[in-house]
Amino acid sequence: MSRKIRYGMIGGGRGAFIGGVHRIAANIDGQIELVCGAFSSDPQRSKDSGADFFLSADRCYGSFEEMITKEAALPADQRMDFVSIVTPNHVHFPAAKAALEGGFHVLSDKPATLNLEEAKALAEIVEKSGKLYGLTHNYTGYPMVKQAREMVSSGQLGKIRKVVVEYPQGWLATRIEASGQKQAEWRTDPKRSGAAGCIGDIGTHAENLAEYITGLKISELAADITSFVEGRQLDDDGNVLLRFDNGAKGILHASQISVGEENNLNIRIYGEKGGLEWRQQEPNTLLAKWNDQPTQIYRTASGYLCQAAAAAGRIPGGHPEGYLEAFANIYRNFAAHVRSEIDGTAPDANVLDYPKIEDGVRGMAFIEAVVQSSAENAAWTKLNA
Amino acid sequence: MSRKIRYGMIGGGRGAFIGGVHRIAANIDGQIELVCGAFSSDPQRSKDSGADFFLSADRCYGSFEEMITKEAALPADQRMDFVSIVTPNHVHFPAAKAALEGGFHVLSDKPATLNLEEAKALAEIVEKSGKLYGLTHNYTGYPMVKQAREMVSSGQLGKIRKVVVEYPQGWLATRIEASGQKQAEWRTDPKRSGAAGCIGDIGTHAENLAEYITGLKISELAADITSFVEGRQLDDDGNVLLRFDNGAKGILHASQISVGEENNLNIRIYGEKGGLEWRQQEPNTLLAKWNDQPTQIYRTASGYLCQAAAAAGRIPGGHPEGYLEAFANIYRNFAAHVRSEIDGTAPDANVLDYPKIEDGVRGMAFIEAVVQSSAENAAWTKLNA
Amino acid sequence: MSRKIRYGMIGGGRGAFIGGVHRIAANIDGQIELVCGAFSSDPQRSKDSGADFFLSADRCYGSFEEMITKEAALPADQRMDFVSIVTPNHVHFPAAKAALEGGFHVLSDKPATLNLEEAKALAEIVEKSGKLYGLTHNYTGYPMVKQAREMVSSGQLGKIRKVVVEYPQGWLATRIEASGQKQAEWRTDPKRSGAAGCIGDIGTHAENLAEYITGLKISELAADITSFVEGRQLDDDGNVLLRFDNGAKGILHASQISVGEENNLNIRIYGEKGGLEWRQQEPNTLLAKWNDQPTQIYRTASGYLCQAAAAAGRIPGGHPEGYLEAFANIYRNFAAHVRSEIDGTAPDANVLDYPKIEDGVRGMAFIEAVVQSSAENAAWTKLNA
Amino acid sequence: MSRKIRYGMIGGGRGAFIGGVHRIAANIDGQIELVCGAFSSDPQRSKDSGADFFLSADRCYGSFEEMITKEAALPADQRMDFVSIVTPNHVHFPAAKAALEGGFHVLSDKPATLNLEEAKALAEIVEKSGKLYGLTHNYTGYPMVKQAREMVSSGQLGKIRKVVVEYPQGWLATRIEASGQKQAEWRTDPKRSGAAGCIGDIGTHAENLAEYITGLKISELAADITSFVEGRQLDDDGNVLLRFDNGAKGILHASQISVGEENNLNIRIYGEKGGLEWRQQEPNTLLAKWNDQPTQIYRTASGYLCQAAAAAGRIPGGHPEGYLEAFANIYRNFAAHVRSEIDGTAPDANVLDYPKIEDGVRGMAFIEAVVQSSAENAAWTKLNA
Repeated sequence: MSRKIRYGMIGGGRGAFIGGVHRIAANIDGQIELVCGAFSSDPQRSKDSGADFFLSADRCYGSFEEMITKEAALPADQRMDFVSIVTPNHVHFPAAKAALEGGFHVLSDKPATLNLEEAKALAEIVEKSGKLYGLTHNYTGYPMVKQAREMVSSGQLGKIRKVVVEYPQGWLATRIEASGQKQAEWRTDPKRSGAAGCIGDIGTHAENLAEYITGLKISELAADITSFVEGRQLDDDGNVLLRFDNGAKGILHASQISVGEENNLNIRIYGEKGGLEWRQQEPNTLLAKWNDQPTQIYRTASGYLCQAAAAAGRIPGGHPEGYLEAFANIYRNFAAHVRSEIDGTAPDANVLDYPKIEDGVRGMAFIEAVVQSSAENAAWTKLNA
Repeated sequence: MSRKIRYGMIGGGRGAFIGGVHRIAANIDGQIELVCGAFSSDPQRSKDSGADFFLSADRCYGSFEEMITKEAALPADQRMDFVSIVTPNHVHFPAAKAALEGGFHVLSDKPATLNLEEAKALAEIVEKSGKLYGLTHNYTGYPMVKQAREMVSSGQLGKIRKVVVEYPQGWLATRIEASGQKQAEWRTDPKRSGAAGCIGDIGTHAENLAEYITGLKISELAADITSFVEGRQLDDDGNVLLRFDNGAKGILHASQISVGEENNLNIRIYGEKGGLEWRQQEPNTLLAKWNDQPTQIYRTASGYLCQAAAAAGRIPGGHPEGYLEAFANIYRNFAAHVRSEIDGTAPDANVLDYPKIEDGVRGMAFIEAVVQSSAENAAWTKLNA
Repeated sequence: MSRKIRYGMIGGGRGAFIGGVHRIAANIDGQIELVCGAFSSDPQRSKDSGADFFLSADRCYGSFEEMITKEAALPADQRMDFVSIVTPNHVHFPAAKAALEGGFHVLSDKPATLNLEEAKALAEIVEKSGKLYGLTHNYTGYPMVKQAREMVSSGQLGKIRKVVVEYPQGWLATRIEASGQKQAEWRTDPKRSGAAGCIGDIGTHAENLAEYITGLKISELAADITSFVEGRQLDDDGNVLLRFDNGAKGILHASQISVGEENNLNIRIYGEKGGLEWRQQEPNTLLAKWNDQPTQIYRTASGYLCQAAAAAGRIPGGHPEGYLEAFANIYRNFAAHVRSEIDGTAPDANVLDYPKIEDGVRGMAFIEAVVQSSAENAAWTKLNA
Repeated sequence: MSRKIRYGMIGGGRGAFIGGVHRIAANIDGQIELVCGAFSSDPQRSKDSGADFFLSADRCYGSFEEMITKEAALPADQRMDFVSIVTPNHVHFPAAKAALEGGFHVLSDKPATLNLEEAKALAEIVEKSGKLYGLTHNYTGYPMVKQAREMVSSGQLGKIRKVVVEYPQGWLATRIEASGQKQAEWRTDPKRSGAAGCIGDIGTHAENLAEYITGLKISELAADITSFVEGRQLDDDGNVLLRFDNGAKGILHASQISVGEENNLNIRIYGEKGGLEWRQQEPNTLLAKWNDQPTQIYRTASGYLCQAAAAAGRIPGGHPEGYLEAFANIYRNFAAHVRSEIDGTAPDANVLDYPKIEDGVRGMAFIEAVVQSSAENAAWTKLNA
């Protein structure tokens, strides 16, 4: 098949944030094409947004339901191949459900749904549909995250004993949602964001990253979450003790009131033989630590990287790759999987390396466990997934 | 005008490096479309390469001359708007000349030409053609480089006294050109690379960066360049003393035999009141230094940045932007300028912020001065531009 | 009074570690003189050790009791002014008690005692004795730690909301105590180390640092401590949720099995208006973070520092001061306080800035709370001090 | 011999800077004792200064001549063993000459003398005297500098090709010497400082560091030095191209007008196989760089260090050692050498690792070559030593 993979976008019209990120991620490699969208629930706004991307008005729909119906009715050589969902959280489930049941593959922003129940239902829908479902836990797209995973799974660190994962931000240190900041508004509203604020928005990224790299599962946790900013309904900070299924212990903390922090996701992992450290704000560096030899600085696009890390880089070492390239790696793999579905060929192993509905269910189970544990004064709570 | 800007690529077929970078840079913002190419001087290879980008065979040409002639003959609503030149250096001049004289805007990889004489000739051709000419000195596309320039031009540092600019790499520490490494092969061949190796390939980036940020001109220099690797015809390392037109002094050194260095372009600038430091490998950080207060860490996408730096970022702070985004900023501005030419509107000031033929002439004058100075045992040599 | 302050050392003979650190700390400023010691419970070993420091054999005692008795009997112009206690933990209390009751000031290594009960008893003894008692929580001796404290207490950060304090080490990742490593041996032995291993040895430093800088008290905690290395009797890793008396939340974790970590004590503090970050391994840098302006890099010995931080530096900025200088700051202040006691003058405020028995009681209360909480599966536990 | 080594100090009275550093360096290890001094040419000021160090007035002399004469007349068991010279540069030579000819070993601050002629004369005096002469090029005292030297000499980097050594400071960016700043005053006065300012004060440290680590000699140089601050008689900035005796090329630049820089001495060295990077402001880290494997972070006090680096550390890894400890390493080795002279034993190899008169002659030859080259518009100039 010699054409670009085609997608339609749900959400992401003018004034949105993450929609623009998805579009860039889709654009980068020249393999994917935006052909339609339901960019807004306001039909005119949807058309106006679509015009920004040079779409014709008849492919800019006023609702995701309309988009799915009308695209399904188009000839196969015009119709979109998958939908990309970039709305606030509460729309993730209905949009994904409609798309999957309408015969389209889905690539959704995280968290997968508004709550765990929906996530489990969605998992069944995905399975029944036979369609592909991807979730943009984009931080797993970084080359050095893949290198870290390989170093754990190949046993270089020995049995994992300790994990420290952090995600501090500072942008919600004051009540900016009250002043009309759109991103803050829906994220602090339980109806659109879900049971957790900070923990749902960024805590799940931390949880996903820890499980992705270590290959372990968090079995139980004890959480203390807080709303520091007066009048805010959802948590803006959370501290969590972790226990993993292999006996490892850990700490996860996420915050949106850590003044002066930008987007400082980072993780440290210690095994019996070695340790790793990775920091998202300088993502092309991975430190490997040992007790009896110098710490090593692994770098994106170096010749000594594992196959998965090498495949996730685009340019030579020292030419920094960033957030958008990592995000694009999710899109690239997902689109390659879509392509192999269309072609009826088997995807290669790298292509399968993108987050799926199982990650979504884990994330929602994590959120629910954190909220429940904290409500019970940090009682140990198992993840129901 | 509501369509993407269309371009054709000269060079950049299978096996090339910088062509892929240009294509990603063009893709990122969804404003530019690759519509044709002369990807190789072998017509079949050109078509094969074009197929990788989903181009139809009839828009994949066997030479740039053919591409320019045939595209010029296409209806206006199909024809490419500009050409992107990504060949080895010796093709830059003839390709640019042909495109400009054929009525197309040109965005060329650097250095502009094979030598200073060609560069000066090209400047005249550009002027006569009335077409736009851009040069991908891509490092000036970084937001923090623009912030640095603004901090100098607004006088925050006081009069500039000293500039230290470095560009060490290590990849040519051994004679890899003898083993068939394509990138090394042409860069070490005077016929395709020009009078200088390392100084032409990366020294010019350093020169351009220093002049871009400071707004000063290098007036004269004393250079000591070396071919460390036996059998290599061109320099692989160069050390240069600089004198600027305002009396500032400086140092520029570039190297491709600095083992273990990736792409470590960096610059420090000191004025009477403050200093700046920027390092390309961690490009989202700019240090501002003062004698009587703490050093400040300026960061991409922060609220306190100048307008040009703000415009050059795409995503919130802490989401690292890298080399490809900086490169895309050159494409974005150039394409916006092309769009305003088509629309007959005045471009805004930001749009004009991309390197032009004047930068190309400066770069070639720099190369010639370095080579001449070094041949005369580091005699002070003025830049002839 | 124009002479050096004189001290005798308890512990710290050949093969010991921390004794040597104390001696250097005492030496640095030329204000303090080692005049005697009970370096070992083996009298000959004590004399041999003393000879290394050029002490005459008659001032090298076979027990701290002997030292205290015999020194007390010396003429005032020869007798030691204070004792320095550098033994394993179980000797701290009896040695301090004997010295205080024998009329000598005491500067003790931490933790203050073997358990909380002893610590409270010691507090009474100190008070009754009228003698000075200092505790070498040496990390509070760093200039940038003092700067951090000042920035909190002066309100620059606003009300404190979150504290993250870490102390990872890796040296006990394997069971080196079984192979005769002396430092590991006593630290992993409950009889000599106390109820906690890692938490007692380094966790207390983290606790002390957090309370010193913030001026807050930990009110309750939930702890999960672990012995990862088989056969080890005491914890070698601990993760703790914190709640402070002003409503702030926090995390403290300490580890001696974090492979590849050296002595990576670090702290981050976030208030309503600003944040701070300090890392012991690069102790001359303090980051101050803000949401609306660039992060600032405060540096040791800069002109803009607060008075306490300025007084704690010895040399101009950029001449790195380290662990020994910070340790020496405790000695210097303590000795100056001793000197003012001898002279009958009032010490100035800086001089009083060294850890005292109250810090020791807090530390022991912290250890006991951690151990108890962990035994109750991380139940919230109040500090009994 | 079981006693401390005794020294007298020339210079370093109240208000001086480097004298205090020398005294701390001498104190740290408890092996050396200050017994007398000619702290000032004003006898009362000398006595007042001595009282600060608890010296009796009769050992505080009004001139170095008096000190040398009177100390020589003391009984052997009281007399100083060596002198430490910490005056402005113009006194270095006469004081060292007098001490050596008076029968005392000498440890002098750098540069060795006021000019090259004096340095060569001093070399002869040292040789004739049979006494030891040490020079406090203190930066060679850092453990990681010694590790770097070992990695070069053992061939791990291959043949050295390129050296970049920098020493930027910012404290003389304005004319503070005119406002009575004592340290600035004499350093900018040719009569007391010599033919060069910045190049003499700190450029020589850079030169010494480069030659120490590489084991190479600078054979010729081309220099461009500048007095940026109006009214200043000596250079406050210098840029120098280097050629080494093995064919390596290099760059040295030193500056005291680089606003915001503290004391940022740093060096990078590239051989055919590997590279090294060391920065004085974070002195416990040494980067080793390779083209085909991750960069390694060597750290002070790690188990894998060479013998010389290990011997130069005092405390475990992660407990940062700084400027004063490095300085103390020069004192410790020199004092150990003095001790072996007194005892008539052979010093071990480590002990001999301190800078000597040969380093002093090299430094003065470097200064003279820089000044001469710059006067001839950066003509290549050979070092006359």
